[in-house]
Amino acid sequence: MGATMIGLVKEHRGPGAILKEVPIPTCGADEVLVRIKATSICGTDLHIYNWDAWADKTVVTPNVFGHEFAGIVVEVGERVTGVAIGDYVSAEGHMVCGSCKACRTGNAHVCPNTRSFGITAPGCFAEYAVVKATNIIHNAPDLPFEIACLQDPLGNAVQTVLSGDIVGKSVAIIGVGPIGLLAIQVAKACGAGTIYAADINPNRLELARQMGADVTINAMETRISKAVREMTDGEGVDVVLEMSGNPQAIVDGFEAAANAGRVSLLGIPTKEVSLDLTNQIIFKGLRVEGITGRKMYETWYQMKGLLNQKRIDLAPVITHRFTLDQYEEAFQLMNQGQCGKIVFTH
Amino acid sequence: MGATMIGLVKEHRGPGAILKEVPIPTCGADEVLVRIKATSICGTDLHIYNWDAWADKTVVTPNVFGHEFAGIVVEVGERVTGVAIGDYVSAEGHMVCGSCKACRTGNAHVCPNTRSFGITAPGCFAEYAVVKATNIIHNAPDLPFEIACLQDPLGNAVQTVLSGDIVGKSVAIIGVGPIGLLAIQVAKACGAGTIYAADINPNRLELARQMGADVTINAMETRISKAVREMTDGEGVDVVLEMSGNPQAIVDGFEAAANAGRVSLLGIPTKEVSLDLTNQIIFKGLRVEGITGRKMYETWYQMKGLLNQKRIDLAPVITHRFTLDQYEEAFQLMNQGQCGKIVFTH
Amino acid sequence: MGATMIGLVKEHRGPGAILKEVPIPTCGADEVLVRIKATSICGTDLHIYNWDAWADKTVVTPNVFGHEFAGIVVEVGERVTGVAIGDYVSAEGHMVCGSCKACRTGNAHVCPNTRSFGITAPGCFAEYAVVKATNIIHNAPDLPFEIACLQDPLGNAVQTVLSGDIVGKSVAIIGVGPIGLLAIQVAKACGAGTIYAADINPNRLELARQMGADVTINAMETRISKAVREMTDGEGVDVVLEMSGNPQAIVDGFEAAANAGRVSLLGIPTKEVSLDLTNQIIFKGLRVEGITGRKMYETWYQMKGLLNQKRIDLAPVITHRFTLDQYEEAFQLMNQGQCGKIVFTH
Amino acid sequence: MGATMIGLVKEHRGPGAILKEVPIPTCGADEVLVRIKATSICGTDLHIYNWDAWADKTVVTPNVFGHEFAGIVVEVGERVTGVAIGDYVSAEGHMVCGSCKACRTGNAHVCPNTRSFGITAPGCFAEYAVVKATNIIHNAPDLPFEIACLQDPLGNAVQTVLSGDIVGKSVAIIGVGPIGLLAIQVAKACGAGTIYAADINPNRLELARQMGADVTINAMETRISKAVREMTDGEGVDVVLEMSGNPQAIVDGFEAAANAGRVSLLGIPTKEVSLDLTNQIIFKGLRVEGITGRKMYETWYQMKGLLNQKRIDLAPVITHRFTLDQYEEAFQLMNQGQCGKIVFTH
Repeated sequence: MGATMIGLVKEHRGPGAILKEVPIPTCGADEVLVRIKATSICGTDLHIYNWDAWADKTVVTPNVFGHEFAGIVVEVGERVTGVAIGDYVSAEGHMVCGSCKACRTGNAHVCPNTRSFGITAPGCFAEYAVVKATNIIHNAPDLPFEIACLQDPLGNAVQTVLSGDIVGKSVAIIGVGPIGLLAIQVAKACGAGTIYAADINPNRLELARQMGADVTINAMETRISKAVREMTDGEGVDVVLEMSGNPQAIVDGFEAAANAGRVSLLGIPTKEVSLDLTNQIIFKGLRVEGITGRKMYETWYQMKGLLNQKRIDLAPVITHRFTLDQYEEAFQLMNQGQCGKIVFTH
Repeated sequence: MGATMIGLVKEHRGPGAILKEVPIPTCGADEVLVRIKATSICGTDLHIYNWDAWADKTVVTPNVFGHEFAGIVVEVGERVTGVAIGDYVSAEGHMVCGSCKACRTGNAHVCPNTRSFGITAPGCFAEYAVVKATNIIHNAPDLPFEIACLQDPLGNAVQTVLSGDIVGKSVAIIGVGPIGLLAIQVAKACGAGTIYAADINPNRLELARQMGADVTINAMETRISKAVREMTDGEGVDVVLEMSGNPQAIVDGFEAAANAGRVSLLGIPTKEVSLDLTNQIIFKGLRVEGITGRKMYETWYQMKGLLNQKRIDLAPVITHRFTLDQYEEAFQLMNQGQCGKIVFTH
Repeated sequence: MGATMIGLVKEHRGPGAILKEVPIPTCGADEVLVRIKATSICGTDLHIYNWDAWADKTVVTPNVFGHEFAGIVVEVGERVTGVAIGDYVSAEGHMVCGSCKACRTGNAHVCPNTRSFGITAPGCFAEYAVVKATNIIHNAPDLPFEIACLQDPLGNAVQTVLSGDIVGKSVAIIGVGPIGLLAIQVAKACGAGTIYAADINPNRLELARQMGADVTINAMETRISKAVREMTDGEGVDVVLEMSGNPQAIVDGFEAAANAGRVSLLGIPTKEVSLDLTNQIIFKGLRVEGITGRKMYETWYQMKGLLNQKRIDLAPVITHRFTLDQYEEAFQLMNQGQCGKIVFTH
Repeated sequence: MGATMIGLVKEHRGPGAILKEVPIPTCGADEVLVRIKATSICGTDLHIYNWDAWADKTVVTPNVFGHEFAGIVVEVGERVTGVAIGDYVSAEGHMVCGSCKACRTGNAHVCPNTRSFGITAPGCFAEYAVVKATNIIHNAPDLPFEIACLQDPLGNAVQTVLSGDIVGKSVAIIGVGPIGLLAIQVAKACGAGTIYAADINPNRLELARQMGADVTINAMETRISKAVREMTDGEGVDVVLEMSGNPQAIVDGFEAAANAGRVSLLGIPTKEVSLDLTNQIIFKGLRVEGITGRKMYETWYQMKGLLNQKRIDLAPVITHRFTLDQYEEAFQLMNQGQCGKIVFTH
């Protein structure tokens, strides 16, 4: 019988998870085995932990979950080239087929045959994880593990910010949870004009200010669209980055967008949204971008460039650090929403 | 008192119009006077004729309406350069401010200060019309007037088709009224892959086939998305051009779009549309483009290139020709929908 | 000892080639074995046959050369998915590493670790060829083999034409050898405005006319730039597609380009070219695109869409058909240049 | 006789200039009169002052020259809207026709009918200047005049940096005179990866470091391409911004560019440059952008966004301040090249 490790396992198809001894996964010929050094909790992990309808439809059990990580390679499959034992790595979590039209034309991030690390395949809330070699990203050795593991959500932010022109443009970021906070930094680092951050949580708005938002809007007190139109001579903002998933905020986000503007949708509403397409999209000549995952691998190279020369500083986004055995406390905190990013150090 | 002409006038804020003697409009210093030779009826003109809520909110009265025309310049304002008496011309109908951000950054077609020829300003259903010189388009002298006047709706089709990549891509055109029919020709002339045309009107689908649609779908008999997915190995189409404005068709159009696809919205729904943003836009990585008017003036140059070398043949779109005094018959025909494009020869 | 086949082999590092019996290549785990049905001769093959400086620096020997083909899969490696025995196929000839930055960001066609089918690896002038499974392109079963094998050069033409906007734009195609002729068809099928074709060979200009060029220019009699400027009111052409590789023609091509135009360079000059960057590129605000190979695999999907619905008809480009044992005659014909595309049927 | 002002006049078609009393120019109906508050010296002004071949071919005399300015509107022509007395303004110097294809398709900056403020028309080295109203740019009232007048060269830098993707990309800026120094700031503010600055002048390289260059290269000591390839694992840089105009540096800049990279040319060589198109552009799949002026007016809006939120700080680029009567000293300093940007306060 093989060696074992401690992993956080989604065992039953209901709320909760359990920390237990499980086998160290076997490294296949096209895979590498990674000693995990840091992981972070994604909103998706909270859905898995709490077990909602999406999780029930999507997640495999039993399964070590978690997909945001940084670590060191300890074993390399026999057909793998370009990855070596000792390498500092993270990974793209979308394991794609490589042969469909989406994969072959630069759109692998929406490959219809995707398996997801930590969701429909074993993940990283554990001492070790097996990763498809083609998905490996090499980290700079001086990039702290706890920062490197944030590249997965950072990539969501980067893809969203860069899904159209950004330099000099006024930007409203709606919903400043962890990805929204990252988006503020990215937008600022990429030359955005005035950055408006909107949320209903005053603590998050305070974090937004610290991350570089030029203006914050409490959506409990003011309609976002009303506020930004007043501050833009009635024009509206050039770019709306929707990261709340809240239907009402989405509708208001479209209202806030200027003619010929862009609305990039990353936040995931749990129900249909009723939109005035005529006045909010068509007569405005608006562009709408649906964003998921990260461009494979353009987004990762953009991140590398931003991180290497310290154009962005992710440290302030991390508000809490735990070890894996404190997982209940960590997920409770996530449920309360009074946090930025929570990191597990392994 | 000045010279007069016969013009079709929207006189009262209710249904109908009246053909009457009106003054020939005066040509300002930055304007030209055009002897109208051919005009065509737009769906917008039908809204004005029938007088609906949009018309009541938007249209000025009394006003000579109509905005799609071709003619010959007969007088040139004192500050006008580059337009001469005898020139064969049409015109962009959006009269824009030229100094706002939209106008100064290539998006004049959504200038918030637009006045519209034939809607909020005098138009072309008459013997003469005054046109802002900057809006003039020179036509090739050998382009028949009845074809040249179709450039306004052709421009809608061209902007819609070309609001993203088209070469080799599968395309569903939903709603094949006149602009949809033009879009079929444009898509084909621009190298589209398989062209699917959908409508609920069998006559229009027959016209669609004649214009070059590879496949036609009667949306009364089959769901468009179901049909195209069966014919694309489940992938869906790369591009959806929505030209019906029908909420149900719009929803189904999104469903028909492939991952990483594009949905360009030109048809104008009269009420809100409820969309599953999560599954139809976000997880698909879809792009949505709201389309109105024509790019000023890139779209017009694209049209000129397509028309000059006969890459497209608009003649089959014209199903009826009238003189202006037959306007009641013409609008009745429009209301019945059993027509392609109706042209007035002046 | 294994089975053998007849193959055209570049055996010695000097002029010529030899048809001889060689082993049928062994199909690796990630490869497929293809029964070749048709091949065509590329200009590169002529360089290999004639053996010039480039060949001496680049080509491996002994080697079955040739890289443009269509055939049927007869064996599939054990790790291959998505390709089956009996499939009608062609292939991308650039065998790339898949893990460098170019490969991972949509630019695999310029992967610095490329091996080239038929140049630095065994090719297709034979009864069978082994092909990397990831490079396989599925052909429609009703696409004739002799057309399908032309997709490699067609892809050069498609990438060149589509390396910028083309709809309605005036285009000068300089050099109308086989790829230039294909480019005429592609430009026309993709909605180009007036197409000017230039060459020094009257026979090729006659072919260009047949393929759809609107204007032909004999560069022996007129300077191309002078001719196109006269026909464009002095503006020059919007797009120049350089396919001659002739330094003088390249210089004149830049001169022919309009302000804000595009010059796409595919033809390969054998020496440096002296350019007036200041007046021909900088003050004109020109864009220049270097083109090699085909976008992997966006270009192939564009071709599939164009071919499936017969937006282009490649048959007229084929001027000669031979069997492989007539190779000397075929290459002699190529050297004389009095031909379009030469196809071997196997 | 009208009022007079002091202006720096290029009077004779030879070296030098003269400060003298001249009439305050008359404000036309479509123009505004500006009280000049600050101007800066462009390399072009030095060509005019020194009188070289380009100047002799291009410049009108006698003429108040200078084109980079900031000031306050003191008179407004009768047809002008949107500009008022007291407005803080600068202006785009390219006075374009507005009706040619370039102007009508977003490329006014290369309008073939351009007149240039301060070169072929009266300029701003004076107490007052008349400016075409359509060319006026409104400055934020709190933007210092001496910064606002730098927008003309800043716009060159912005257009160059943003003539392709920049986020996360390694960038070599060749030639760090004033525009190169501005480009460093812009590239950094827009999210560039590692920024390499190259020049032959150690003082300028020191300034480059202060402006944010991550690496500086003295091109007298090392070949730029060799240096950057060593620092990029042999890959080369993603983006080359050529701002030296030096033929040898241009050749080396192409050599420094990675496959699929971009070379944007702003520096103006005074003679032809011999390029290995085959290996440096074609086989690399390189894009080359010729840059002149500023996009009208997209570049200006980008600048406004960058300046308003202080994403860039231009103050360190200004190394010397003079009054207009010290012009001889100022131009002497320019000729010696031991300076960043020289500003005249009026």
